[in-house]
Amino acid sequence: MFDLKAMFYPNSVAVFGSAGEGKLANVLTGRLLDGGMKRVCIVNPKKESAREAKGYASLLDLPEPVDLVVVASPANTVKGILEDCGKTGVKAAVIISSGFSEAGNSAGERELVGIARQHGIRFIGPNCAGMVSTHARLVATLETAPPVGNISIISQSGAVGGSFMALSADDGVGIAKFVSYGNGGDLTVLELLRYLKEDPETKVVALYLETVPSGREFMGAVREVRSVKPVVIVKSGRTNTGQRAALSHTGSMAGADAVCDAALRQCGAIRVDTLQDLFDVCKGFATLPPVKGKKLLVITNSGGPGVMTTDKAEMDGLLIQETSDGVKAELKKFLPSFAGLRNPIDLTVEGTGEQYEQAIVTSLAENDAAVALYIGTPYLKAMPVARGVAAAAKRSAKPVAAVMQVGCDIGDSLKYLREEGIPCFASGERAVSVLAAMARERQSAKKEPCIAHVAPGSFKDGTKRLLEPEAMRLLRENGISVPKFAFAQDEEQTVKSCKEIGYPVVMKIVSPQIIHKSDCGGVVLNVRDEEGVRSTFKKLKMIGEGKDFKGVVSYPMLKGGKEVIIGLSRDPSFGPLVAFGMGGVYTEVLRDITFRVAPIEKNEALEMIQEIKMYPLMRGVRGEAPVDVDALAEAIAAFSRLPLLYPDIAEADLNPVFVYEKGILVADVRILGK
Amino acid sequence: MFDLKAMFYPNSVAVFGSAGEGKLANVLTGRLLDGGMKRVCIVNPKKESAREAKGYASLLDLPEPVDLVVVASPANTVKGILEDCGKTGVKAAVIISSGFSEAGNSAGERELVGIARQHGIRFIGPNCAGMVSTHARLVATLETAPPVGNISIISQSGAVGGSFMALSADDGVGIAKFVSYGNGGDLTVLELLRYLKEDPETKVVALYLETVPSGREFMGAVREVRSVKPVVIVKSGRTNTGQRAALSHTGSMAGADAVCDAALRQCGAIRVDTLQDLFDVCKGFATLPPVKGKKLLVITNSGGPGVMTTDKAEMDGLLIQETSDGVKAELKKFLPSFAGLRNPIDLTVEGTGEQYEQAIVTSLAENDAAVALYIGTPYLKAMPVARGVAAAAKRSAKPVAAVMQVGCDIGDSLKYLREEGIPCFASGERAVSVLAAMARERQSAKKEPCIAHVAPGSFKDGTKRLLEPEAMRLLRENGISVPKFAFAQDEEQTVKSCKEIGYPVVMKIVSPQIIHKSDCGGVVLNVRDEEGVRSTFKKLKMIGEGKDFKGVVSYPMLKGGKEVIIGLSRDPSFGPLVAFGMGGVYTEVLRDITFRVAPIEKNEALEMIQEIKMYPLMRGVRGEAPVDVDALAEAIAAFSRLPLLYPDIAEADLNPVFVYEKGILVADVRILGK
Repeated sequence: MFDLKAMFYPNSVAVFGSAGEGKLANVLTGRLLDGGMKRVCIVNPKKESAREAKGYASLLDLPEPVDLVVVASPANTVKGILEDCGKTGVKAAVIISSGFSEAGNSAGERELVGIARQHGIRFIGPNCAGMVSTHARLVATLETAPPVGNISIISQSGAVGGSFMALSADDGVGIAKFVSYGNGGDLTVLELLRYLKEDPETKVVALYLETVPSGREFMGAVREVRSVKPVVIVKSGRTNTGQRAALSHTGSMAGADAVCDAALRQCGAIRVDTLQDLFDVCKGFATLPPVKGKKLLVITNSGGPGVMTTDKAEMDGLLIQETSDGVKAELKKFLPSFAGLRNPIDLTVEGTGEQYEQAIVTSLAENDAAVALYIGTPYLKAMPVARGVAAAAKRSAKPVAAVMQVGCDIGDSLKYLREEGIPCFASGERAVSVLAAMARERQSAKKEPCIAHVAPGSFKDGTKRLLEPEAMRLLRENGISVPKFAFAQDEEQTVKSCKEIGYPVVMKIVSPQIIHKSDCGGVVLNVRDEEGVRSTFKKLKMIGEGKDFKGVVSYPMLKGGKEVIIGLSRDPSFGPLVAFGMGGVYTEVLRDITFRVAPIEKNEALEMIQEIKMYPLMRGVRGEAPVDVDALAEAIAAFSRLPLLYPDIAEADLNPVFVYEKGILVADVRILGK
Repeated sequence: MFDLKAMFYPNSVAVFGSAGEGKLANVLTGRLLDGGMKRVCIVNPKKESAREAKGYASLLDLPEPVDLVVVASPANTVKGILEDCGKTGVKAAVIISSGFSEAGNSAGERELVGIARQHGIRFIGPNCAGMVSTHARLVATLETAPPVGNISIISQSGAVGGSFMALSADDGVGIAKFVSYGNGGDLTVLELLRYLKEDPETKVVALYLETVPSGREFMGAVREVRSVKPVVIVKSGRTNTGQRAALSHTGSMAGADAVCDAALRQCGAIRVDTLQDLFDVCKGFATLPPVKGKKLLVITNSGGPGVMTTDKAEMDGLLIQETSDGVKAELKKFLPSFAGLRNPIDLTVEGTGEQYEQAIVTSLAENDAAVALYIGTPYLKAMPVARGVAAAAKRSAKPVAAVMQVGCDIGDSLKYLREEGIPCFASGERAVSVLAAMARERQSAKKEPCIAHVAPGSFKDGTKRLLEPEAMRLLRENGISVPKFAFAQDEEQTVKSCKEIGYPVVMKIVSPQIIHKSDCGGVVLNVRDEEGVRSTFKKLKMIGEGKDFKGVVSYPMLKGGKEVIIGLSRDPSFGPLVAFGMGGVYTEVLRDITFRVAPIEKNEALEMIQEIKMYPLMRGVRGEAPVDVDALAEAIAAFSRLPLLYPDIAEADLNPVFVYEKGILVADVRILGK
């Protein structure tokens, strides 16, 4: 692991820029001092000081070297500053200054990287909103300084990171590190992720991204982090990504955001929609023990909010199971007769702190997590309940999320719960979202990276498109089940091969210029004898006249099975994708299609099959027998390896594939080169 | 309209119950006094006073009559109190006391209603959390007292109402009236709705419901209110309603919540999911001019939150259109070159209040509403932007929602905006939800009640199920297109009628005991001649042996069309429902089915057809011609009238109905009596 100690744990910081009142460097200096950094100086041509920070004209003038420089001076000064860093042994810089690649000055940015590499300097930025390392009392940003904690956030947007820290400051659940990486000239989101993986102060990583530049590497980095701590992501710009052209027919059927969504799930990240969700879910991970299952206890002193919480839980895939008779008997020993025992457990407005404590401990024995709701009036005391909830969380050692609303001592109660490490949420629904996300994270198997590199071959030289028999052969060589077929260039050969295949046969024209064979009469079904073969051959040859007619490919008549489509395409960021869907109107009208970044293993292919809406058709409806999902998954996995085995494949479709009770057969194929 | 002046605008209030410190009546008395009610007394056997409220032993002892009584004494005292109200001419009571129908004491509650009716007294409760009428300075509840405003809330749950008012108190956007109606012994949610319709202080009505007891009446009341002001609803208990058995096959395919959802949309209510949504949307209606279209302007000083807001807008069905060239040219006149002009308009961190004002006014010329985002740092001043946003809202007279985050004067800025009547939301996403809901409300046509009452006939005496030819006849008589058919009881008659129909024919067994005709071989397709008819008749007769064989119904062979299902069922709360879906796997696997409370008009039926997922199939995919959606809508509307024309129809299914390029035909029918 690369060393970022000077970056995140500096003992001394030099700020570059004008020290004038209200100027960026002046304010930054103040923030560093207010944040608790003891040794801060400011560097500018006029040697002006700012507050306790002494002013110098150059890094070379400092009495002793600093660990970190924070640069807020004009773009054209940054190069010189980095060179001075090299001379004085400074190894870390935060470059807030803009005017680099974001403004068309990529050369200037490359220059900075060059100097940094030469001297072993690492830098954040340029064009960023700075960073924070609370445990080191380092506040090198204008954004809100958050309390100390164990959530770390990397943000592509400084303002979003700032809003995240403002939520943290309001809520009291703290932050370990914040980085606004700006243009990512040197330290990229990938390296920062890997750094946070090893960071003992970081328990959960929050990410805000608008673009995912190196999709596959990014997935790899997330997967690594994810093996030791959760990664929660807001990826915005869903609609802006629409312009990314997905290459293949199947690929174009879903927005590019679906690809990103699949990729994030595939690498085990938890994607949420809003900044508030991002904070809430991180807060859950930072403060709660793992949510090991889906069974949720809701306990309340008021019916309505209990019902709303239950509704949300069931919408989010958690289970609200009725209290068992055994636990009911236990509860009856200490709860009054008017208490509701079913789950939600309703203690009514008379619920006491002891009742909350006992009821939570008792019922958590058969549940995985609890939401404790307290809805008081301005005249009721909340603190006894807060104490009861905190005690129950400790005794049960399972996740307990609190919702406390209204009460004459509600402020104190919230503070007490915070100090006891019990997270409070604004509503039962919000608490449920968090517990549901945590349960999903836990459930999602730690995905192993799939076979990534295979010595690549070339599928065909000098052509853009494989002829159908070539494509079928390629599939067969790669273990994908295709029907018997024969390619013949003249009539006699065709007659011979059709006899071998066995009547009736299907005959299709082969021509690099004819893509939609059916549309021009180039597919003839149910040819029953030699005579038919001969007349069909003649007909097909006529159709192919002047269109580079190559011959005829013949197949046996296939028995129809469930029709599905498997596709390959390439995403500009994530590379090869595999798509799967039901054929025909299901794909066209319902967009019932799912994606993965390729290659995938069979178990992942099984997940794809199971997640399409029409999956029940595969299992058999109306007494039909189920089809061979296992063979289908193997085919999807095998097909997903092709773009890595043959990097010159641009896109491919198997459409349709027939899936039978036993086995599958590819009924048509199209493979295009780059 | 009934008179509730004494209830909502009393000059004097008597509270019943113990005056001891911390007792309910004591606290209520304090709340009334603190709320600003001048003339409050307290009534209890010991004549104890509470604060300035003098104590009396009985209503009869008061020196002068009061307008309103608030009852918090034990259940067994309430009857006597109402009788005393009768004697002293008190016309309004809020009965907080519990121990009535909710505790099994329905007789006690009926007794209260009887006394009230006798004396012309109206009451809220029993078993309720009281009420508030801010304009009359009446706070007759323990819940949070909200500021004065023009949102009114009726809540089935006192705690939910209390939380709603707590949100109002936090936010500053005020409440006109709050009623917790408890058991609704006298004043029900229906009457309260009608009262709020006429209430000039109420601009928007919020409802929290867990059950909808008289579905049709409720819809009628909402429709009435909706004609003059918006109604926003949280209907919870989605999952609890699962147990309500929907009667018919089609009805059972969707949860009962889908029925409630359809009913709420049908009467023009806006349904939202959470309490926060309820408050936010009401706040929008209370403070903003109407959202007359879907085009949304997003203006921001920071990219990230702008992108997230845009994403949400597109998810919620609003349009974020790129700024036109003309408006861009205008904007360029006063915005710096680095500002983003496309929409979101990004003023960058340097955006000034004047720029916000000018840019909003300029761009709103081509948009219907705006979200103005300001994401500052703790060191920036927000107030100039707040002033700019408020000025722009005034100048443009279109809805402008603000989101202000972080800044050294953010508290003052929020207060300023509130005073200026500009609603602020916690995030761009939340602001978007509100504007989208307002746009939907505006768009939804004010629905006219459909023909409601028809002199009902009886579809059949003394049987539970119509025979197929009877059912077909009933459809035909009601203008629903059925194929030619003939019912015959013996072989000769069958031969004759099949000749009339014309070969080939379909022959089906008719027996009240055979429901699944196909399963027992009771349907024979494609009978081509007299000989076939004779042998088929014999076969069917044999199948029907011992099963009350009635004869054979014959049809021409129908050409297949698009298959759809139309169903009727009865919901315990909403009464007759009509359902529509695509047939077969679409309905079974996708639950692609939609509901309305019957009867409906053709335009509503068209909406049903258009809202199913597979609707594009009707319009024609892959070059198919569209089918006759118009004829289908007429059939759905006609079918939806049957349960009102024939109230003894319990359920019915037309499955399948073939829809052709021109016209439709019902291919099978099942009608069951109650």
